[in-house]
Amino acid sequence: MPTANRQLILRTRPTGLLAPGDLQLAEAPLPSLADGQALARVKYLSVDPTMRVWMAMDSYLPAVAIGEVMRAAGFAEVVESRHKHFKKGDKIVGLTGLQDYTVIDSADKRGSFQKVPPVPFISDTAFLGVLGINGVTAYFGMTEIGKPQKGETLVVSAAAGATGSIAGQIGKIHGCRVVGIAGGLEKCKWLTEGLGFDAAIDYKQPDWKDKLAAATPKGIDIDFENVGGDIMHTVLERMNLHGRVVLCGLISGYTKQDPALASFGMILVKRLRVQGFIILDYMDRYMEAATQLGKWKMFGKLKDRETIVEGLEKASDAINMLFTGGNIGKLILKV
Amino acid sequence: MPTANRQLILRTRPTGLLAPGDLQLAEAPLPSLADGQALARVKYLSVDPTMRVWMAMDSYLPAVAIGEVMRAAGFAEVVESRHKHFKKGDKIVGLTGLQDYTVIDSADKRGSFQKVPPVPFISDTAFLGVLGINGVTAYFGMTEIGKPQKGETLVVSAAAGATGSIAGQIGKIHGCRVVGIAGGLEKCKWLTEGLGFDAAIDYKQPDWKDKLAAATPKGIDIDFENVGGDIMHTVLERMNLHGRVVLCGLISGYTKQDPALASFGMILVKRLRVQGFIILDYMDRYMEAATQLGKWKMFGKLKDRETIVEGLEKASDAINMLFTGGNIGKLILKV
Repeated sequence: MPTANRQLILRTRPTGLLAPGDLQLAEAPLPSLADGQALARVKYLSVDPTMRVWMAMDSYLPAVAIGEVMRAAGFAEVVESRHKHFKKGDKIVGLTGLQDYTVIDSADKRGSFQKVPPVPFISDTAFLGVLGINGVTAYFGMTEIGKPQKGETLVVSAAAGATGSIAGQIGKIHGCRVVGIAGGLEKCKWLTEGLGFDAAIDYKQPDWKDKLAAATPKGIDIDFENVGGDIMHTVLERMNLHGRVVLCGLISGYTKQDPALASFGMILVKRLRVQGFIILDYMDRYMEAATQLGKWKMFGKLKDRETIVEGLEKASDAINMLFTGGNIGKLILKV
Repeated sequence: MPTANRQLILRTRPTGLLAPGDLQLAEAPLPSLADGQALARVKYLSVDPTMRVWMAMDSYLPAVAIGEVMRAAGFAEVVESRHKHFKKGDKIVGLTGLQDYTVIDSADKRGSFQKVPPVPFISDTAFLGVLGINGVTAYFGMTEIGKPQKGETLVVSAAAGATGSIAGQIGKIHGCRVVGIAGGLEKCKWLTEGLGFDAAIDYKQPDWKDKLAAATPKGIDIDFENVGGDIMHTVLERMNLHGRVVLCGLISGYTKQDPALASFGMILVKRLRVQGFIILDYMDRYMEAATQLGKWKMFGKLKDRETIVEGLEKASDAINMLFTGGNIGKLILKV
């Protein structure tokens, strides 16, 4: 049994890509177990874009503190146990951190670590990917938010990544036309020939926007969005009315400061639902609203105020008032 | 009976605020009616931010063509009729355009124009505001998308405008704490003293962000968004997990080119639903997803691929691969 535990310690918060000193290799003594704890040997670590966010700032989880072991999901095997739920030989997944050994605490029943059942034909590493966090992310993102319907068109960005590649295949299982966006010929080939995507768009080609248009002749109904920025905007421009965007990642913004992405970052981190809204869609229910509004108005629960400008010829000035803050309440032009 | 119809014709598309020549006053002969048509005298015109969008570009409606009468909602009275659904003296609302007289076509039963019933104590102009498009917008935006619950906090931007002032009051009716954002003391005073908002924030004051924070001690659950840009971002930063954003307008971007608003413009115009998504929220349903994913994998419906980097000390390089496009499929670090 070794006595040292190699750990990667967060020393400085990265600004762009990770620089050599940001994570520093250190050796800590192998922890001795208290009653109720178990020790697990980390075998595999999941490498995920979200780690870059954890290094830099508070998000849906607090930032990793400077001087602490870098947070990471991993696959590990219990090598010693004084814990009543985990015994020696158990295989587990959870937030092991970037280190050789991790301690499972007494409080950890099914919180940070989960036992992995032995499943025939399934590799250990699959529990970090297709049957792990990426697979589950693709699954719930698609089924709970994307809600794919047969015949719809799904576009997935970062489609050759761990989550995107599964999300696209779930779209195919549900009968969607699936178009992936990825960087480079090899990735695109894997998507179409390996995974059965209907088309793959290489965003490194100068004409990729035209190709996306050609590959989505009926527009786009679902965007499983992992990238943000220009790629997302190009997809949004081709979306059909009432489409759904599963905002799962904004990887184009993780290594730089992009103010255009800031609001989308909030939407992602806080799991907000943003719904574009034009009243045209509800005009057949006009009377329902007008009746209720009229009642509220009659009972004094709803007050209104008007700013009236006189003269058809004043229309331009009146419209400009809306943008210069000139009116209070409803602005009306008396002809 | 006059023989001329004054019209405001769109001559040039505005770039910033409307310039004097963009809308040009012209006189057309009063149209003579064909069988099935009616003529209505426009009394009041609704002045709405969306008109600036109609002048500049295609959106949820096509842009107004150069040389055509500018599109506008209005209140009018039928003065002559050969139409079977509209008779002389009927009061109507609809897209009259910026002109003295409008023709109702035979096809218009309840499409572009609606008859206004005589309602006691309700002024004609109310059918352009609180009982018109603004009221109905506030009503469906709040009830169908915002879904206000008692005790929640609602923030409304452009709160002293025709739609915002109604949306906020609907929030009060549903038992929300309601905070309005508006420009200037007079508007803010009207919101709190006139309409019963719990607080009003004057965004022209330098410390308005601090005041918004103080006015929303429990965070924000619903954003009825009319403005976009910095105001929206500041609201998003204070939103609670799983909050809802009714994206009703982006008035801060209508008179300028703002790339940061472009994607939100698409969301608004196409009525998209964007849902931020973090898998943490579904972790208690992990087994449900893993079971289905495992079945799909076993039956060959789901394929995965791994890129494996060896050595704990390679973690930084591995994380950077995610942002430089170096991996295909799941990226794993073998410890």
